[in-house]
Amino acid sequence: MSKGLFISVEGPDGSGKSTQIDLLKKYIEGKGRRVTFTREPGGTPIGEKIRDIILDPENTEMASITEAMLYAASRAQHVSEVIRPALERGDVVICDRFVDSSIAYQGFGRGLGDAVATINSFAVAECVPDVTLLFKLDPTVGISRIKRAQDRLEKENLKFHQKVYEGYLEVEKANPTRVVGIDAGRDIEEIHKEIIDKIGKLL
Amino acid sequence: MSKGLFISVEGPDGSGKSTQIDLLKKYIEGKGRRVTFTREPGGTPIGEKIRDIILDPENTEMASITEAMLYAASRAQHVSEVIRPALERGDVVICDRFVDSSIAYQGFGRGLGDAVATINSFAVAECVPDVTLLFKLDPTVGISRIKRAQDRLEKENLKFHQKVYEGYLEVEKANPTRVVGIDAGRDIEEIHKEIIDKIGKLL
Repeated sequence: MSKGLFISVEGPDGSGKSTQIDLLKKYIEGKGRRVTFTREPGGTPIGEKIRDIILDPENTEMASITEAMLYAASRAQHVSEVIRPALERGDVVICDRFVDSSIAYQGFGRGLGDAVATINSFAVAECVPDVTLLFKLDPTVGISRIKRAQDRLEKENLKFHQKVYEGYLEVEKANPTRVVGIDAGRDIEEIHKEIIDKIGKLL
Repeated sequence: MSKGLFISVEGPDGSGKSTQIDLLKKYIEGKGRRVTFTREPGGTPIGEKIRDIILDPENTEMASITEAMLYAASRAQHVSEVIRPALERGDVVICDRFVDSSIAYQGFGRGLGDAVATINSFAVAECVPDVTLLFKLDPTVGISRIKRAQDRLEKENLKFHQKVYEGYLEVEKANPTRVVGIDAGRDIEEIHKEIIDKIGKLL
């Protein structure tokens, strides 16, 4: 059915995802392909409203399973309204965070385990990335890079971020074909070169 | 663990649930038991924000699976923050709509099937009603009784409400011990008498 290419970008905050996404987008457009860039949580008007609830620093009493379900709800809308239609018209979709974020943050970080994968399988309804760029950077380095005001999730302690990072490494191990690990400790040009080397072949 | 009694109240809008809940609450309090009354969707500050998204008449583009996940997210928070703590301190909890509403409206009405039960099993985490009062009334009668401004769900057509009602009847058939069917076509006093007859034994 799908004629497009679905790229998800994953990894800890502060790992340089945004910079690389901008460079990748320009590269793909330079090759004459239309790019739909989107991000989670959010990506749709309904998803943005859900995002506001998730990230509101006042909602400290939020249960872990509630948070996981809100991410899944937002994702279901995102897939239905943005990602699937873009893939069907042949776009390259670059999505900043997708299911693997939920598995790392909720499944591993919050200790919700396999429930997260099950819930999300209903949300995405078989709309799975063709390739996932996983930015690998030790959480202690990533957190020190973040200079802007921190939202609720970023304020979680380092131990949590360590568990999230281990979750990402498990995702990489479990999906060796789909997930491409990127050493995010290098300089911008070097990382970009590696990424276009991987993605260029798929265009 | 739980010392309380968990009663959920289900059935189509316009079936007289609210009136009977008020009478039941007074009856139980008259017996010296503390009652926690709550309702779905909502029941917590986070849940109310989720409820606003679900019922906003502007959100017409909402995917069925998104709607189901938002109900489940609100329910997870409701169980964690209100229902489970109330049961643990020994209250009688009366909840206006619970999992069976999702099964009837999303599973049957929207045709999402068993996904709804699976998603909700994670949301409730074994917090299941001891007894469910199911108000049975033909949907054509129920809809004509609603005089106030209608929200998005109430504006759905009659065919949808017929499917929902069939869903409720399936839930009743599948859970003969938990679900007590109430013929909601009778007068207020008669229905109240039947309800306190059933509930009185459980107090």
